[in-house]
Amino acid sequence: MNKIKLIIIISSIMLISPLAAEAGESAELTHAMTSLVFQLGLIIFAARLGGKLFRKLKLPVVLGELVIGILIGPYLLGGIPLPGFAEGLFPLVADQSIPVSRELYGFSTIASIILLFIAGLETDLSLFLRYSLKGSIIGLGGIVLPFILGSSVGMFFLHKPFMDSQVLMLGLIGVATSVGISARILSEQRKMDSPEGVTILAAAVIDDVVGIILLAIVLGVISIVSDGHGGSLPWGDIALIAAKAIAVWLGFTAVGLVFARHISRFLKSFRSVTVFSILSLGLALILSGIFEQAGLAMIIGAYVMGLTLSKTDISFVIQEHLHSLHEFFVPIFFTVMGMLVNVNALLSWEVIIIGLIYSAASIGGKIIGGGIPSLFLHFNKTGALRIGLGLVPRGEVALIIAGIGLSTGYLSEEMFGVAVLMVLMTILIAPPLLEKALKRETRGTRDELADSNLTTTVFDYPSQEMTDFLITKILLEMKEEGFYIHSMEAGERIYQMRKEEIFLTMTVSENALSITSQVSEVGFVKTLVYESLLKLHETVNKLKNTSKPESLQKDLSEETEAAAFDLFKYIDSSCLTYNLKSTEKEKIINELIDILIKAGKLRDPEECRKAVFEREATMSTGMQHGIALPHGKSTGVDSLCAAVGISRKGVDFGSIDGEPSHIFILIISPKNTSGPHIQFLSSISAILNNPEARNALSRSGSRKELMANLKTYSSRK
Amino acid sequence: MNKIKLIIIISSIMLISPLAAEAGESAELTHAMTSLVFQLGLIIFAARLGGKLFRKLKLPVVLGELVIGILIGPYLLGGIPLPGFAEGLFPLVADQSIPVSRELYGFSTIASIILLFIAGLETDLSLFLRYSLKGSIIGLGGIVLPFILGSSVGMFFLHKPFMDSQVLMLGLIGVATSVGISARILSEQRKMDSPEGVTILAAAVIDDVVGIILLAIVLGVISIVSDGHGGSLPWGDIALIAAKAIAVWLGFTAVGLVFARHISRFLKSFRSVTVFSILSLGLALILSGIFEQAGLAMIIGAYVMGLTLSKTDISFVIQEHLHSLHEFFVPIFFTVMGMLVNVNALLSWEVIIIGLIYSAASIGGKIIGGGIPSLFLHFNKTGALRIGLGLVPRGEVALIIAGIGLSTGYLSEEMFGVAVLMVLMTILIAPPLLEKALKRETRGTRDELADSNLTTTVFDYPSQEMTDFLITKILLEMKEEGFYIHSMEAGERIYQMRKEEIFLTMTVSENALSITSQVSEVGFVKTLVYESLLKLHETVNKLKNTSKPESLQKDLSEETEAAAFDLFKYIDSSCLTYNLKSTEKEKIINELIDILIKAGKLRDPEECRKAVFEREATMSTGMQHGIALPHGKSTGVDSLCAAVGISRKGVDFGSIDGEPSHIFILIISPKNTSGPHIQFLSSISAILNNPEARNALSRSGSRKELMANLKTYSSRK
Repeated sequence: MNKIKLIIIISSIMLISPLAAEAGESAELTHAMTSLVFQLGLIIFAARLGGKLFRKLKLPVVLGELVIGILIGPYLLGGIPLPGFAEGLFPLVADQSIPVSRELYGFSTIASIILLFIAGLETDLSLFLRYSLKGSIIGLGGIVLPFILGSSVGMFFLHKPFMDSQVLMLGLIGVATSVGISARILSEQRKMDSPEGVTILAAAVIDDVVGIILLAIVLGVISIVSDGHGGSLPWGDIALIAAKAIAVWLGFTAVGLVFARHISRFLKSFRSVTVFSILSLGLALILSGIFEQAGLAMIIGAYVMGLTLSKTDISFVIQEHLHSLHEFFVPIFFTVMGMLVNVNALLSWEVIIIGLIYSAASIGGKIIGGGIPSLFLHFNKTGALRIGLGLVPRGEVALIIAGIGLSTGYLSEEMFGVAVLMVLMTILIAPPLLEKALKRETRGTRDELADSNLTTTVFDYPSQEMTDFLITKILLEMKEEGFYIHSMEAGERIYQMRKEEIFLTMTVSENALSITSQVSEVGFVKTLVYESLLKLHETVNKLKNTSKPESLQKDLSEETEAAAFDLFKYIDSSCLTYNLKSTEKEKIINELIDILIKAGKLRDPEECRKAVFEREATMSTGMQHGIALPHGKSTGVDSLCAAVGISRKGVDFGSIDGEPSHIFILIISPKNTSGPHIQFLSSISAILNNPEARNALSRSGSRKELMANLKTYSSRK
Repeated sequence: MNKIKLIIIISSIMLISPLAAEAGESAELTHAMTSLVFQLGLIIFAARLGGKLFRKLKLPVVLGELVIGILIGPYLLGGIPLPGFAEGLFPLVADQSIPVSRELYGFSTIASIILLFIAGLETDLSLFLRYSLKGSIIGLGGIVLPFILGSSVGMFFLHKPFMDSQVLMLGLIGVATSVGISARILSEQRKMDSPEGVTILAAAVIDDVVGIILLAIVLGVISIVSDGHGGSLPWGDIALIAAKAIAVWLGFTAVGLVFARHISRFLKSFRSVTVFSILSLGLALILSGIFEQAGLAMIIGAYVMGLTLSKTDISFVIQEHLHSLHEFFVPIFFTVMGMLVNVNALLSWEVIIIGLIYSAASIGGKIIGGGIPSLFLHFNKTGALRIGLGLVPRGEVALIIAGIGLSTGYLSEEMFGVAVLMVLMTILIAPPLLEKALKRETRGTRDELADSNLTTTVFDYPSQEMTDFLITKILLEMKEEGFYIHSMEAGERIYQMRKEEIFLTMTVSENALSITSQVSEVGFVKTLVYESLLKLHETVNKLKNTSKPESLQKDLSEETEAAAFDLFKYIDSSCLTYNLKSTEKEKIINELIDILIKAGKLRDPEECRKAVFEREATMSTGMQHGIALPHGKSTGVDSLCAAVGISRKGVDFGSIDGEPSHIFILIISPKNTSGPHIQFLSSISAILNNPEARNALSRSGSRKELMANLKTYSSRK
């Protein structure tokens, strides 16, 4: 900002450097911990800044986090020596399969578990499977072909058999669609609810589930391959492994679903929602460990645990309370994945060529694999292309699987780079193509379907603070209504909600909530938001009622003792009037405000007026015994000021006891700076609790007398 | 629950074991990650269960987490071989200064930074120093003596000079008071606001700050000592180091305070509160790294960052949004600290004797060091004893410092055990003694002070969900009022709030909010809670107004298209009446409910009645055009049921247009199970939007006709 501050900073840094030298070499462990702390701090910032930058460039946030990871990782900037870090802030760790420290990798492992646990929580399997036959068929098509094409690329370029671990991993990585990015484009183009849009989203969920089962099978097969069976494998064994993997998956999912209510009841016995949300994560961690021990993968366990709890009534509460943990860990995950990319290994012609062909195979695999079945399911070529393109983007699941491959040694550094390149390419290429395909005016279905007749209802909301609160209520309401809800995060939050023929898309942006639906469902949407708002209101009301604000207000006017507080620092004799003329509440307030304006107390009178009327709208400030204390906090004043007025006739101020009000004290205090607002309020009420004081005040015949009376009774109290 | 479920579990486990065997040995990294995942999952559960158990035993939660850590740690249960974990789930890591894996230790390091960052956020230095001269003097006394006594024990038993690293560490560990436990006892005994109570809390804050500066100095000195200067040290150098440590501390704190507003503005530019809360933690991590590099300690940096942001308006928001992270990381911290205790090393007579004497020195040091100055500051012997005892408990800061000592090798395994033993002893011994001292009827001050005249105002609140919300508002309000707030967590949350002569203690328990104050401040307290409730209400109202529920309701009655929904699955012809008799809102509702009761639709009629009236209290369900839709969700029904009634005369139902209502449809749907509640509501309104339908319905002369009309117009729509 200015030079003096710069000097302070520089001199502080100069003070440190000699200290650092004197401190000498700290133990290796301390150094490792210091690195970890620095690394996490830097990653938190770098990931956000990268994400922000890419969002401005209209590119996906995830991409920004990945690229920033590559940039600050050990192969590029992270390896540059710095004072205190001879090998850089992210030194290249040579003697293990990953180039970052194990402490840091530990954080990204936990992050991947949190990601998949929450993905599971957001899925509602039973309801989904019931309504998505088309989606399942297309989803399967989009799994089989990329797997075949991906592994073919591996076989051809690596000269390895199909049963090689690298080849299998390359096949597997291309399978899982990351639907968030497509969802955002569909939503921007208002096509979320088109037949293509619904089908893309349905197919993507099938992708997730089948992709994860496939991961289990492939890991089982690889474990045999790497045990040295070589090229010729007994296919019977592999069938057995596949059967077992599916059995374990289904077994645990079934057990989970059977015990879901018990688990939920157990968790709820801890009462605090934060505590049981974290305990549910504890369960996910333990199940992840069990799955890994069973030869499946950790993330599968996390996903199954999420799926289990998705059925229970605490699903939303957990999602809400793990939000901060999610926001802390997930950018760490993507950035660390970027760091694992060896740019040097990537910069050979061979790797680039394989990478591009693999990307083409992965993109083509989804377009054709998802598109062909679509042609047989009432879609025309345009529709099939749209669906295929919508399934192209790959994301976190592909990266997690590639990361597992790299860390287990099943995937070479080069092939990991190829996989990351593929993810980057799909994220870059698919969105503009999908956008273009959606902009074509032609219908995507063969049959003349009923006009989709979509409309979007927008609800503004004023405070960020309330958003999560309201959305939680709406989602809860929808779940109770029997809706299937699928949530996606893609810059903004998008929720798809479906029940039989009703299909809604709720988009939560920075200051509005938009729900897209068929025109015929607008009534339903409005009823939904209306009822949710009322529920929210009711919760607050319940709180207000148990705390009995009316009785509190009554109590306020009955307190007899008062604390020492010098009211007269704030009451100017020019702001008193013994003779208010108005006879209506609104006019009385304006009359009092005019007094303050004349006395030059208000910098921005209109702001002040607004604040007072807003407060009055919440609940009347008319107390018992003819007293009213209109007040407000506003940026329009610099320090607390008050106007005191008497009305002989009395004015209906909506007081508690229904009696007209005679004594008015208007108080305006500054917003955002600390001041004795409540102290003033409670002190003045204390004086006015004295019936003699009220009597004397309301009979004052002049300003002077009014001031004198105030002073007399404030000292007596 | 039953045998079938057990069989499912067992058969699933049997399925896994062969798979696990076939999977073979995964890479070492995978094993490390699997261990980490298991360990964190187990720690999350063990810590909670330990804490819960100890709370039931009326012992501090922290103690439970520590003891559980010792129990499941590498020296006891954690070392027992298990299938898949040949060396146990928490294998003893031999070749480094700590017995747990570095990945796990990484998590506890981040936890200690989060702990101290939040401690810093909760402190308000400037306001504090202004009001706490007594506290500062007593706090300093309670620092100096334990340091001298603690290091003396070290010198005597270890036969080392004062300038030895172990001796200095033993001195340092005894310094920092953990005031949470004393605060809970003071609060239970309603002595939070006594002269002794206030002084204890003030002294403890000074402890924190000075203890952390002392840590900086000691680490500087040790770095010279361990550089090999041996026993004879140039005292001048040490003075220089101390001066530098204090200068760095003060320098960064000053820079932080100068730039606090800029940092806050920068953070706020990220808009999402969750995001900027996590970025603030990122800043804390980076500053921690810088402090460690500067030869100070990481936690000092975290504390300074917290202190910096404590002044800004985002302080509470950050605390709120890091709550989940705090709850996730902090139990990990205490449990891991327990794991570092080598029970075997502890089980020698020498260590036990040193431990007990060191505990005695640390306890005596605080009682005498804090008590003696108290005698000169208007307290009598009873008061001095109470203050001394209140300062005895040690906690997280002592453990963090001991952990630093162990990991850097400045503290031997035995002396680390001695330190943990001391912490355990102080937590066990101090509370009952303090309780006893407080129960004495005598005054603690020498002068006859004004009777403290304390009173507690209790506010109940109904829903856990709303607690944090309300408390955040109250704290914000108090901060705006210019109060100094200090927060403590000790089973329940306690907030001390102070401004000049006003001193309040707010205790947040599971279902009530208690505020202890002078009798003369009760008016202030009530005004405070009242205004905070209104603010909360206002926020919700604002949301309701921008979303315009009235216009929404109007909209609802004007939707003309309707979705396909079979109403008649839910409307029984026995539940229709064309001739309602009542003329009042309440009676109409009861009449309709009686119809449902007669038809045998309600399992628990009273529950249902309550639900309908509750909904009505939130906002009348009287729509336009003479329609009213009273409804509710209740556990008293098993499936949605509805009663339709017509009133010829019309009833004042508080409708939007002020017209009397003629057509009543009462809807009760089950709670906690999914069903078409909102679909029913919106479908029925759609029918009633047709003026012809309304006309026909209200003129129906019999049940049959009514049903026929309903059916006619529902198919026309």
